[in-house]
Amino acid sequence: MITLSTDFGDPYPAAMKGVIARRTDADTVDVSHSFPRQDVRATAFWLRFVLPEFPPAVHCVVVDPGVGTDRKALVVRADEHALVGPDNGVLLPPARELADDIEVFEVSVKEPASHTFHGRDVFAPVSADVHEVGVDQLDRLPALSRTDEYETVAFPDPVVREAGVDGEVLVVDEFGNTVSNVPGDVLDDREAVVVDGKRYPVVPSYAHVAVGDPLVTVGSHGNVEFAVNRGRGDEAFGFSSGDAVELRWP
Amino acid sequence: MITLSTDFGDPYPAAMKGVIARRTDADTVDVSHSFPRQDVRATAFWLRFVLPEFPPAVHCVVVDPGVGTDRKALVVRADEHALVGPDNGVLLPPARELADDIEVFEVSVKEPASHTFHGRDVFAPVSADVHEVGVDQLDRLPALSRTDEYETVAFPDPVVREAGVDGEVLVVDEFGNTVSNVPGDVLDDREAVVVDGKRYPVVPSYAHVAVGDPLVTVGSHGNVEFAVNRGRGDEAFGFSSGDAVELRWP
Amino acid sequence: MITLSTDFGDPYPAAMKGVIARRTDADTVDVSHSFPRQDVRATAFWLRFVLPEFPPAVHCVVVDPGVGTDRKALVVRADEHALVGPDNGVLLPPARELADDIEVFEVSVKEPASHTFHGRDVFAPVSADVHEVGVDQLDRLPALSRTDEYETVAFPDPVVREAGVDGEVLVVDEFGNTVSNVPGDVLDDREAVVVDGKRYPVVPSYAHVAVGDPLVTVGSHGNVEFAVNRGRGDEAFGFSSGDAVELRWP
Repeated sequence: MITLSTDFGDPYPAAMKGVIARRTDADTVDVSHSFPRQDVRATAFWLRFVLPEFPPAVHCVVVDPGVGTDRKALVVRADEHALVGPDNGVLLPPARELADDIEVFEVSVKEPASHTFHGRDVFAPVSADVHEVGVDQLDRLPALSRTDEYETVAFPDPVVREAGVDGEVLVVDEFGNTVSNVPGDVLDDREAVVVDGKRYPVVPSYAHVAVGDPLVTVGSHGNVEFAVNRGRGDEAFGFSSGDAVELRWP
Repeated sequence: MITLSTDFGDPYPAAMKGVIARRTDADTVDVSHSFPRQDVRATAFWLRFVLPEFPPAVHCVVVDPGVGTDRKALVVRADEHALVGPDNGVLLPPARELADDIEVFEVSVKEPASHTFHGRDVFAPVSADVHEVGVDQLDRLPALSRTDEYETVAFPDPVVREAGVDGEVLVVDEFGNTVSNVPGDVLDDREAVVVDGKRYPVVPSYAHVAVGDPLVTVGSHGNVEFAVNRGRGDEAFGFSSGDAVELRWP
Repeated sequence: MITLSTDFGDPYPAAMKGVIARRTDADTVDVSHSFPRQDVRATAFWLRFVLPEFPPAVHCVVVDPGVGTDRKALVVRADEHALVGPDNGVLLPPARELADDIEVFEVSVKEPASHTFHGRDVFAPVSADVHEVGVDQLDRLPALSRTDEYETVAFPDPVVREAGVDGEVLVVDEFGNTVSNVPGDVLDDREAVVVDGKRYPVVPSYAHVAVGDPLVTVGSHGNVEFAVNRGRGDEAFGFSSGDAVELRWP
């Protein structure tokens, strides 16, 4: 199985699927092609959330603002999974979620057919090659060489204070649910929190408040989430990706 | 085959596909992940339209405004098909379109991993289990028990009058085509209808009027539809989902 | 393998997948279902770009503003590929990219179930039939008859002048990258071009200019493209599909 994750929209990913289908019979599965445009950190967050649900697979990831520059191409082995993509940090958080020990390989890339579509010209064929040789046989691919130099994306650590927790908005999903970097267990046994001077209920899920009302909950990723029942949490709380979040105890 | 229908957008459905791929080799097919957000009736309408085209399959449906509350989880058997989803009525209209006799089972759900993402934690694994045991062997799944208590969604009946038909807008599709609950045969042998005091032509398809002109037709679902050739019918007729529609004969 | 290309959005393509799955075990691959609405030329451009990446396959293409009129239905054989769709020109440019010699067949269509959804009622079943009989055995399908009368879409030729090149915008992609009909080799050895009186750098890819800066490059389709690094080229250059483009040498 080869999964595909890009910020390409349509129809570029189809070209990648064609390239893969010419090289392998592996099933391809779309993770998303609407990751936040060129947002490496948000994509890394989502992949850390989604990829561990999959059985062993090759994960082709192309969110690549540096396409056509001299940034490297990587293959990261994480147990029985492999991640293939640009060396901009996006692969490391999901790889570390998939396995304690990882191995990173640099791909020796010949002059690709284009400078602007390495999804088609580099990452799709490498993903197919990795699938065909097998994730436990990466040494047999002459284009790969082990490396210890690679980029990574860091998620900021929240700061726990006596009065509450200072964190940051990591992503806003398509519902408007706003996901922070604050681990959900800080809400254990709490009935309410204060954000920006206003008190909000802490509830197990959205429908525990009236339609249209705001709430704070622990999302399925385990982090503190700001939401509105059948509405948009980002608008109600005024949050965007990257914003500071100050949770205070009532 | 397991089909997936949600209002999740991206990338949540990928987590469901991963969960399924860990449990079964069944093909997964996306019906849609952009069903109208938390709109149980509109989703039921579309599924009643689309699912009968499929060969026998397990249909996993997660449009679930009550996630995390005590609403039940259901499996509905309809001949060789099974539908899996929340007990909010969404499963029943397509099930009744697929088979005259249906059987409804309640799922005994252990404490799921999250309160907010039962697509991943409940409905995907149950769909895989149903696929593996076989739709004709549901009795063998210990988590399932027959029930006669379940929600259903009703589509309003149109009212036929001497002067015309009073109906309702059920859904607006992405083209802006506006689908009503009025059965298409009321337009048999008619050349025009009056809506809101204006006369519109009744035609077999969009291109039978000039580009930009409004029209009334019978859509591929068999219902009366309000459209514009290469334009948006919802805007031309001023219709939104749930609006009353008064068709009058000229 | 059967690929699907439409402008249907959701959930209509799922009905086509159901129809296909009832007739064949072939894998289906989505090329796109968000091709520019009823834009035959733009779809033909994208298919000419994407379909050559695929191994031999049946390509079902439904961008069909004339649905329900007397426009014909076609199957076009291009070496080991077949393209199935309406006779409005959309199939020919990708077919000619796939093979030097093509054969065109008209489909004898019985009264379809609907006048508005031939994707489900005509093109999906024909695509499945073509896949089952085999692209090299089209003569065995009684519904098909060779024809030399069919529509085609022409892409305008750019006009090369001493002072530069006059071309046209063919498509704008979801990034806002604006693709013209001007072949990329006119930029060989050039460092800059003038568009609408302003000078822009010619670079190999987006990240060779500062974030937010405009640029001119050769896209992965081989044509001259107008873009902004991490921004929208269509807005920066004021270009829409169909606009005239006057490239001038500095």
